Amino acid sequence: MATRTLPGPTVGVVGGGQLGRMLAEAAAPLGIETIVLDPTPECPASAVCRDQIVGAFDDPDSVRELAARADVLTFEIELADPDLLEEVSGEADIEVHPSPDTLRTIQDKLVQKRALREAGVPVPAFRAVDDPEELRAALDELGTPAMVKAREGGYDGRGNLPIEDPDDAEDVLSELDGAAMVEEFVEFERELSVIGVKGDDETATYVAGENLHETEILRETVVPARASGAVRERAQAVADEVLDLMDGRGVYGIELFEVSEGRSSSGRASGERPDPRAEGTILVNEIAPRPHNSGHWTIEGARSSQFEQHARSVCGLPLGSTELREPVVTKNILGDERDSREATLSGVDQLLAEPTAHLHWYGKREVRPLRKMGHFAVLGGDRSADELLESARTYRRHVEFEP
Amino acid sequence: MATRTLPGPTVGVVGGGQLGRMLAEAAAPLGIETIVLDPTPECPASAVCRDQIVGAFDDPDSVRELAARADVLTFEIELADPDLLEEVSGEADIEVHPSPDTLRTIQDKLVQKRALREAGVPVPAFRAVDDPEELRAALDELGTPAMVKAREGGYDGRGNLPIEDPDDAEDVLSELDGAAMVEEFVEFERELSVIGVKGDDETATYVAGENLHETEILRETVVPARASGAVRERAQAVADEVLDLMDGRGVYGIELFEVSEGRSSSGRASGERPDPRAEGTILVNEIAPRPHNSGHWTIEGARSSQFEQHARSVCGLPLGSTELREPVVTKNILGDERDSREATLSGVDQLLAEPTAHLHWYGKREVRPLRKMGHFAVLGGDRSADELLESARTYRRHVEFEP
Repeated sequence: MATRTLPGPTVGVVGGGQLGRMLAEAAAPLGIETIVLDPTPECPASAVCRDQIVGAFDDPDSVRELAARADVLTFEIELADPDLLEEVSGEADIEVHPSPDTLRTIQDKLVQKRALREAGVPVPAFRAVDDPEELRAALDELGTPAMVKAREGGYDGRGNLPIEDPDDAEDVLSELDGAAMVEEFVEFERELSVIGVKGDDETATYVAGENLHETEILRETVVPARASGAVRERAQAVADEVLDLMDGRGVYGIELFEVSEGRSSSGRASGERPDPRAEGTILVNEIAPRPHNSGHWTIEGARSSQFEQHARSVCGLPLGSTELREPVVTKNILGDERDSREATLSGVDQLLAEPTAHLHWYGKREVRPLRKMGHFAVLGGDRSADELLESARTYRRHVEFEP
Repeated sequence: MATRTLPGPTVGVVGGGQLGRMLAEAAAPLGIETIVLDPTPECPASAVCRDQIVGAFDDPDSVRELAARADVLTFEIELADPDLLEEVSGEADIEVHPSPDTLRTIQDKLVQKRALREAGVPVPAFRAVDDPEELRAALDELGTPAMVKAREGGYDGRGNLPIEDPDDAEDVLSELDGAAMVEEFVEFERELSVIGVKGDDETATYVAGENLHETEILRETVVPARASGAVRERAQAVADEVLDLMDGRGVYGIELFEVSEGRSSSGRASGERPDPRAEGTILVNEIAPRPHNSGHWTIEGARSSQFEQHARSVCGLPLGSTELREPVVTKNILGDERDSREATLSGVDQLLAEPTAHLHWYGKREVRPLRKMGHFAVLGGDRSADELLESARTYRRHVEFEP
């Protein structure tokens, strides 16, 4: 590899939401400038990047303009269009990381799960289901309850529907309105995630975090996860296997289930191949080909953040250290359940007065129900994970959106 | 104080150099946007702030435009014009922090030193000298060598001239070309600095760092300073006294001398008042009314960085924690001694491969002799201060500007 020089490259980012914003914040110190493409004028990233191109994620002219002004392309949202990225990448002769192929694979949850299963990565049992008949047959094998998932476009739990009764097959599939798959219901001990990064001939993973969801939306991440050291190591090992399958550099958010041995439902899994969970107690739930909400703790909690790693990796620079600096809990600041309206968060001074809390506001002008508006990290050497979590919940009550 | 809300205020910053850049990087997560005024198109801060107004620091129309687009004004360079800021602040009815009065006091080194001395803050002995006659008379009292300083406009050692022989008085004063002062030569043990911050009814200081200069330009800062605990405490106490004198919120870089008791030159000081150094071993050298080069270690080394503190304080938000996270050394990346030219720093990948090094590139397009182009921090729990410093020097050799 030729020696790298500064000033560094400009990264063109499809998407300018909070992930693009935190990416821009982390890239600048490395001498890497960012330009984002986002349809919302004054999108979150726009306040801290060189420039925003206002346009749809899949608008060919906008993506071409982005490519013309950048040295490498990446995306911070799965709604990026892999075909268009591939085409523009060829035309402009610049690289896209992660590769459009990887994005394509991940966008289709069925293709994603098949790729993992074929590589021997442990995943829950699943079936493709194109019609109610197939769904009912699958439930015969997988048992109920089970989780029916839209193959594409799901996000924050949207596109996932539990099914209890095979008689509901028609209703569930018509509600999902598109190609679907069904997955055994995993009675997990904990939901974990590992942030991994794939560089130029190197990969790295962070310690596993523990994710606490409500209504399928991430609320808190506790780091390190309150699992055994062996489980955390296994989680990182599985994440390493996942990284091996990914094509193209970048950060990957790898969501996992920790299943206790005793509660493993392998008896329900199909007999077509050995149940991979026998190897351990970790199953892969989903992969995001980008920095992940559950990795925001790395900003203060690790030597290099997931955003710095993403900037380094897409630019082909050496990866930074993933070492944990101290235990940390992050908590999302989500919109409340009232109507969408102009965002005004009050009580911010109380939150900022907490010496171990670190705020990250995303700069969104409008608050909507359960929209991710910001997050904060709570660190503090002497407190246990439970205490950090309790503090985070207390601090969260300092702030609220005005009606 | 009313409860603070998000989205936060916009800070208008006079100056868009590296200090403005790191301020913008730190302000964004708090929901604080920045607009900078700087005469250089694509100035360092421009890559990470909402907008740059291209104009001179003292151009009335530009400062008015900045005020019109901001909720509060600050400056990151002492070349800001206090009279203009005061005028515009009144017209636009927005606050300037620190106060123009403080800026005015600090801009004139003689006025600054007098204010400190009058308040009982320990400073080296000094005299105003308006002509060679006065300089020679002052040297009779202060002894030689001594340091002759331009009262205004000095920076990075420019405007400071040592004098060995009273016969050189004419030459030295004509070289400085303006109002001057002379100060006793302080045979210091170490040069220290304390970063202090003054908020709304609260102040805070960081642990003292130790500054290593060459040709009067800061090269490295070692944190904590390799002085005794008592000396470091005394340094923070003196910094607290300085903060009490400052008017207006903001971060202050307080440069200090550590003088060993035995080597104190109090015998040479004038008898007109008790020698304040008798109280301890710390003397105040100079104050900067802004984040300071010697405080860059706070980005990774402390809970809240000096830049976050500056953003918090000028906006009237509660101060963050100044707690040290781990020992740290910062090293400046200065231009070499060759001619000014387009900046190309090579070897960056080697520097980035060091797991405990954190790079901050300032985004300047042109490298000039000894110009501050970037810095990096080296952290690492187990290493001693000496080892961290040795590592920083080793890492510095990874990078160089192409000829």
